[in-house]
Parts: sequence; structure tokens; C-alpha cells
Amino acid sequence: MAGVRRLLPSLNRVLVEKVVPPTKTNAGILLPEKTTKLNSGKVVAVGPGARDRNGNLIPVPFKEGDHVLLPEYGGTEVKLSDKEFHLYRDDDILGTLHE
Amino acid sequence: MAGVRRLLPSLNRVLVEKVVPPTKTNAGILLPEKTTKLNSGKVVAVGPGARDRNGNLIPVPFKEGDHVLLPEYGGTEVKLSDKEFHLYRDDDILGTLHE
Amino acid sequence: MAGVRRLLPSLNRVLVEKVVPPTKTNAGILLPEKTTKLNSGKVVAVGPGARDRNGNLIPVPFKEGDHVLLPEYGGTEVKLSDKEFHLYRDDDILGTLHE
Amino acid sequence: MAGVRRLLPSLNRVLVEKVVPPTKTNAGILLPEKTTKLNSGKVVAVGPGARDRNGNLIPVPFKEGDHVLLPEYGGTEVKLSDKEFHLYRDDDILGTLHE
Amino acid sequence: MAGVRRLLPSLNRVLVEKVVPPTKTNAGILLPEKTTKLNSGKVVAVGPGARDRNGNLIPVPFKEGDHVLLPEYGGTEVKLSDKEFHLYRDDDILGTLHE
Amino acid sequence: MAGVRRLLPSLNRVLVEKVVPPTKTNAGILLPEKTTKLNSGKVVAVGPGARDRNGNLIPVPFKEGDHVLLPEYGGTEVKLSDKEFHLYRDDDILGTLHE
Amino acid sequence: MAGVRRLLPSLNRVLVEKVVPPTKTNAGILLPEKTTKLNSGKVVAVGPGARDRNGNLIPVPFKEGDHVLLPEYGGTEVKLSDKEFHLYRDDDILGTLHE
Repeated sequence: MAGVRRLLPSLNRVLVEKVVPPTKTNAGILLPEKTTKLNSGKVVAVGPGARDRNGNLIPVPFKEGDHVLLPEYGGTEVKLSDKEFHLYRDDDILGTLHE
Repeated sequence: MAGVRRLLPSLNRVLVEKVVPPTKTNAGILLPEKTTKLNSGKVVAVGPGARDRNGNLIPVPFKEGDHVLLPEYGGTEVKLSDKEFHLYRDDDILGTLHE
Repeated sequence: MAGVRRLLPSLNRVLVEKVVPPTKTNAGILLPEKTTKLNSGKVVAVGPGARDRNGNLIPVPFKEGDHVLLPEYGGTEVKLSDKEFHLYRDDDILGTLHE
Repeated sequence: MAGVRRLLPSLNRVLVEKVVPPTKTNAGILLPEKTTKLNSGKVVAVGPGARDRNGNLIPVPFKEGDHVLLPEYGGTEVKLSDKEFHLYRDDDILGTLHE
Repeated sequence: MAGVRRLLPSLNRVLVEKVVPPTKTNAGILLPEKTTKLNSGKVVAVGPGARDRNGNLIPVPFKEGDHVLLPEYGGTEVKLSDKEFHLYRDDDILGTLHE
Repeated sequence: MAGVRRLLPSLNRVLVEKVVPPTKTNAGILLPEKTTKLNSGKVVAVGPGARDRNGNLIPVPFKEGDHVLLPEYGGTEVKLSDKEFHLYRDDDILGTLHE
Repeated sequence: MAGVRRLLPSLNRVLVEKVVPPTKTNAGILLPEKTTKLNSGKVVAVGPGARDRNGNLIPVPFKEGDHVLLPEYGGTEVKLSDKEFHLYRDDDILGTLHE
């Protein structure tokens, strides 16, 4: 078990590592609580996609490395060799975040 | 995190900045409460669209800058660099408002 | 806001202005309460239509000016420059009324 | 309002005027309560039909004048110039009655 | 009303006359209660069939005279000139019974 | 009624005679309760199959004589000439059992 | 019954033997409880797959021997000759685990 490193999600599932928002700026100044409440994460792995009603495979619209906005609820917690990840269905992810 | 400026919504989601109805006319006269209750907003960004049952992509029928009438309930609150937005599915938006 | 005059409904939504049934005849005679209870309205604007499962656009079967019979419940209230309207999905409207 | 005479039902709706079963025979003899409990009506008007999932219009399988068996529940009451009618979806009507 | 003899069921509905299981053999011997509990009936009339999602008409898989096994619950009671029938959707009927 | 021997299930229904697991070995030794709890049965008859959304007939994936694993719940009890059977939809049956 | 060794799952069902995570390393040192909580199993047998709405057979995306991540809930317990297995639908399995 300790050897398990990677999860290849099935169907249209997306494995995400949550981004813990910094509470201080680089200079150590406390950030106002408001700006730190964005529930987001980095995409670690994506499934092959789900099939529509006619059996066509619909690829997942996210790729490894995407910074994504996560819904307030949902997501399945998955522990892989001491790291915590969350698994979402692609259509529950709200969008991609950009600088 | 403070660097996150933009959200590209996924699927048929629409990012809206609510229009706060003025309570006074330009001349400062209080507007009757009735006329100021329209729940509307400006479209900031739209997703690529959702797929119908046969996998065809159905584009979102709204574009950036549209003034849209919002439903009384629903919408997900999203804070991006101190500004408050709301995320709706396109079929929950009631229509476009015109002068 | 006071400038907003028109709403273009989205999808298969229909904007209706309710017809307030007269309680008296032209000659001022009180109409029996029974005959005045028809819940109906005039169509003010219609959406482009909704899509069926295969993505085909199904036009709204009503047009501006139609006198329509409304369901007892449902309908979203919309205030536009002091006038009250109601928004329905086309398949909730029971039919058209004719002299 | 007193001018409204006719309702053209929308979609697959059917306008029915309920048949009030006679409680006596022509000769005035009281009919046993059992035989008079058939919940039926005459078709007054039918809608154009509803669309199946692929957008094909499926005509209503009843026509004006049909004597139809009605379900125990359901039906929307509609008053048109002092007469009482009921509106059903075509697939809620149980069948046609014949001598 | 007393003139109504026949019901032509609509869609995939099936009109059934329940078979009342004999409690005694021909020789008058009481049958054990167990063997008499089969909830079955004779098909009296069938509808034209229902449409699948693509509008194709799917005929009812039963015909007049079939001896059918009925579900424990469901079925709409219909009285036609003093006789009692029951109306089922074809997919609620469990199968055909054979000697 | 006593003459009814056979049921031809409708649609994708499967008629099963439950296998009552032996509580003792052939040599009469009591089997541990654990090994005797498999809820299974022999297929006695199958329906013609159900239709998919496009009206294609999907045959039942089991045949007479198959030893099948049954779900913990569900199944309609059917008594035919003193024997007890159970009726299942084919997609509720968990699989086939093999030596 | 004691002879039943194998289950061929039906449709898109997957038979899994749960992996009981070791609580100690090979050298006998107690593993922190956190790392041992992965709910996973080895695929023992898979069904032929389910059909999409148009009747096309969609194969199961797992094969015998795959190490799979299981959902927290669900799964039907199946005892086959003293061994305990669990039966899942393929779309409930979260993905495959790799070293």
C-alpha cells in the first residue's frame, strides 16, 4: 500500500490538489481574510472522459497543471502516500483561473 | 492568490457582475423603491457552451457586456481580487435587458 | 436602471402582461364574479426557442399580441419601468384565447 | 373578457367538456348509482401535438367530438363564457368510449 | 351513458377483465387457499401502442384473449355497463399464462 | 386456474426458481451458516427483451438453466401450481454462477 | 452450493476483492493509521459492459488484476466459497492505482 503513488481517474473524473491560499504577503503582512477565501486547486490527473448518450467519448476540458475554481461542496477526498487530493466530476468544476 | 484576476467559466456557465440599482436620480431625488428592484447584471465572461445529448456543442446565447435579467435565486458567489461576481448556468438567465 | 424598457426573454421563455378582467360591463353593470376569473394575458415578447435533445431549435408557438390562457401557478414576476410582467416557459402556457 | 369564446389548446393538450351521467332513465326511473360513475367527456378542441426528443411533431390521437374516458385525478378547470371545461394532456386520457 | 359498451384504450394501455380464481374444484371440493391467489386476467382490448423517443410506434405485446399475470398493485378500475375492468400500461403486465 | 402451469415473462423479465442452499453435506454434516447464504436461483423462463430508446430490442443476457446470483432485495413472488417462483428484471440480476 | 467458485458479473458490474492495507511494515513497524485508509481492491472479474441509449455495448474500462480505488459507500457483498468479494458498477469505481 505505501507503494501507491498515482491515481488514474476513471471516466470524467479530475484529481485536484487544493491550493491553500497564503494568509500573509511575501513581506509577512497579514492578507485580509476576504481575499484568501477562493476555493481552488491544481489539476493533477484527468480521466479519459465520459460518453454522451450515443456513446461518443467527450474529453475532459481540463489538463494537468490547470488552476481551477472548485465548487463550495462535493469532491471525494483521496489520500495517496501522505498527500491529500480531491476527486471531482469535470462538470462540477466551475472554470479555470488566470493571472 | 492575490494574482488571480480572471475566471474562464466552464461549460455553459456565465460570470456576471451584479448591477446595483441606483436609489437616487442624478439630481439626488430618491427613486421609489419599486423601480430599483430589478435583479440584473453585466456579463463578464462566458463558457464555451454545454453539449447536447448527441455531443454537439451548444454555444452560450450571451456575450460579454450583455445586460441580463437574473433569476431571484441561484448563482454561485465568486470573489476575484476583491470584486464580487456571480456564476450562473446560461439556461437560468431570464433574458437580456435593453433601453 | 430607470432606462430599462425592454426584456428579450431567453430560450423558450415568454413575457406576458396579465389581462385584468373587467368587473363591470361597459354600461357599468357588475359582472358575476364567475366570468371574471380567467387567468390570461397578452404576449409582449418571446424567446428564440429551446433546443430539443438533438440540438434543433424548437421555435416558441406564440407571438407578440397573442391572448394566452395562463396556468394557475408559476410565472416569474418582472418589473420593467413601473409595469408588471410575468415570464413563463412556453410549454406552461395552456393555449390561445379567441373571441 | 365576456367576449372570449374559444381556447385553442397548446402542445398536446386536449380541451374536454365533462359528460354529466344521467341519474334517471328517459322514463324517469332512478339509475343505480353504480352505472352513473363513468368519468368521461366530449373532446371540444385539441392542440397541435407535442414533439418527441428528436423534434418530430406527434399529433394528438383524439379529435373533436370523441367521447373519452378521463383519469380519476388531474385536469385543469377552465371557464369560458359561463361554461366549464377541463384541460388534459393527451397521454393522461385513458381511451375512447363507444356504444 | 347506459349505452357505453366498449373502451378503446389509448397509447400502450391494456384493458383487462380479472379472472376470479375458483375456490372449489368442479366436484365442489375446497381448493387450498394458496393455489387460488394468482392475480391474473383476460385481455379485452389493447391500445395502438406508445412511441419510443424517436417517435416509432411500439405495438402492445399482448392481444385480445391473452391470459395475463397482473402486478400486485396498480391498474385503474373502469366500470362499463355493469362490468368491472382494469386498465394497465403494457409494461406493468408481468407476462402471459399458459396451461 | 389449477391448469396454469407456465408463465412467459414480458419484456426483459426473468422467471427464477430460488436455489435453497443445503444446510448439511451429503454425509449429513452441518455446513457452517456462512457458506449457505448465497441468494441464487435457476432461470426458468426469460422474456423477449426490452427496447432501448431507439426501439431496438435488447435480448435478455440469460437463458433457461442459468444459475444466477440474485440481489438481496426486489423480485416479485409468483405461485404457479404450488411452486414458488420469483420474477426479476434482467438488469437487477447480478451475474451467472459457475462451478 | 459449496461447488460455486466463480461469478461472471452481468452488464457493467465489476467483481472486486478488497485489499486489506497492512498495518505494519515488513520489518513489523506499525504504519501510521493515515496511510492505511485507502479503500481499494483487485479486480477479479468484469461484466460484458452496459448498453448506451442507442444499444451500443460500452465495454467496462477495467480488467482482471487492476488495482482500483473504491468509493467510500456502495458495493454489494458477495460470498463465494468462503471468500468475500464486492460487486460495483463500473462508473462507481474512482480510478486505477499505480506504484
